[in-house]
Amino acid sequence: MSKYKTIGIVGGVGPYAGLDLNEKIFRLTQASRDQEHLNVLLYSLPSQIEDRTEFLEGKVKNNPALGIYDVLKKLESAGSDIVGIPCNTAHAPEIWNVFMSRLKAENSNLYVLNMIVETAKRIIAENPGKKIGVLGTNGTVNFDIYGKLYKEFGLHVKYPDAEIQKNLVHPAIYDASYGIKAKSNPVSGKARDDLFKAIEHLIEKDVDAIVLGCTEIPLAIEEENYKGIPLLDSTMILARSLVDLAGAERIERKQK
Amino acid sequence: MSKYKTIGIVGGVGPYAGLDLNEKIFRLTQASRDQEHLNVLLYSLPSQIEDRTEFLEGKVKNNPALGIYDVLKKLESAGSDIVGIPCNTAHAPEIWNVFMSRLKAENSNLYVLNMIVETAKRIIAENPGKKIGVLGTNGTVNFDIYGKLYKEFGLHVKYPDAEIQKNLVHPAIYDASYGIKAKSNPVSGKARDDLFKAIEHLIEKDVDAIVLGCTEIPLAIEEENYKGIPLLDSTMILARSLVDLAGAERIERKQK
Repeated sequence: MSKYKTIGIVGGVGPYAGLDLNEKIFRLTQASRDQEHLNVLLYSLPSQIEDRTEFLEGKVKNNPALGIYDVLKKLESAGSDIVGIPCNTAHAPEIWNVFMSRLKAENSNLYVLNMIVETAKRIIAENPGKKIGVLGTNGTVNFDIYGKLYKEFGLHVKYPDAEIQKNLVHPAIYDASYGIKAKSNPVSGKARDDLFKAIEHLIEKDVDAIVLGCTEIPLAIEEENYKGIPLLDSTMILARSLVDLAGAERIERKQK
Repeated sequence: MSKYKTIGIVGGVGPYAGLDLNEKIFRLTQASRDQEHLNVLLYSLPSQIEDRTEFLEGKVKNNPALGIYDVLKKLESAGSDIVGIPCNTAHAPEIWNVFMSRLKAENSNLYVLNMIVETAKRIIAENPGKKIGVLGTNGTVNFDIYGKLYKEFGLHVKYPDAEIQKNLVHPAIYDASYGIKAKSNPVSGKARDDLFKAIEHLIEKDVDAIVLGCTEIPLAIEEENYKGIPLLDSTMILARSLVDLAGAERIERKQK
């Protein structure tokens, strides 16, 4: 038995984002031998979880919440105490509230961290300013997932203009030939270049910090700053919160 | 339900090797969207699995087979059909036979691939020659895990001389300050340099190919060849066999 809490990860959304969260949990844990690392269960069951953006846009009927709920239940019965879901779009109320209300109705003890809320808390702690740019999928941007949750933290969210979102950001994640979901090892130069064009665009819109608000984006962009503006990795912030909650000694590290 | 078999991974031995196997499974699978990836369950429960080399050397009493067996049972009840254990030293008969005989006694349907046997099959298929150098932990080398299993394939195993093994190879994996288990992202320059010195040494011993026979080593060495000698990544070979067995379309790729 470990003296620390066991971390569960709802993987598959996307598969590489699940690995990335798991890797960041290991990286942030103070450990010099195998046995000192935390217990982590990573479930990648991608075929049973519909695309989150396609659901929000009405293109697929089944709510991905159903597949996510199933994975959460599996993680719970496998012994997870705390869980992260490394998909920003899955945090849309239309999806999030469905699986959370089911867990609540069952009096589940599983503690599911809200990645968007964790990023807001981190911004408040670091205090770069109130104007926060967000890069994400069409689902995250068009359904204003960040804006809704950041309001109560007094943060003002700015997204890319529609043309930039449609032609640069979303395809950098989803395009079947060069998008990160199709090509993540290595990421294509075009996906990375297009994301940096969108970052430039957000900086022109006078933001104080930019959240890489899709867990595929940090697979392409590891920089912690760009032209003096902090680039906040939502996956890294979630990993940090999970390691802290699990009770392990964490390697201190400026958020990237 | 996925039409493919579900892959389970006994992670935590070490934690990064589990991630590496999982990443290689994703990388070798033909997929352009999340939903096309295989179901993979990665259980990293490192605190309950004793160090494999320390057990073989009599330094710890509990057989790591007990912790591995527990993880195998958990993976089975979570729906895994086929399993990989990304730790070469865990393939020592003193460990491997204990958990395998328990599974057999229960008529378990779980199919646990033997990574060492998979590397042997791959060598026979690629046919670089019969003299195979192996880099591994003291447990793998001193208990001749490869030699015992390779004999029936007609392959002749050569290990580094005792001084090289003791001073370069084992510490590159285990040293608490610069070893890969303590420092894997990024790996220390010293661990990598020392492993290449051992590779040079094996080449001087006239080998036809070298197996990176500890799953931590490919975290430091991504090269597929060195001075014309193939460097065979045991984790990549295991990933390849798992993707094939799961029934997914695999990206054809020369073994590295």
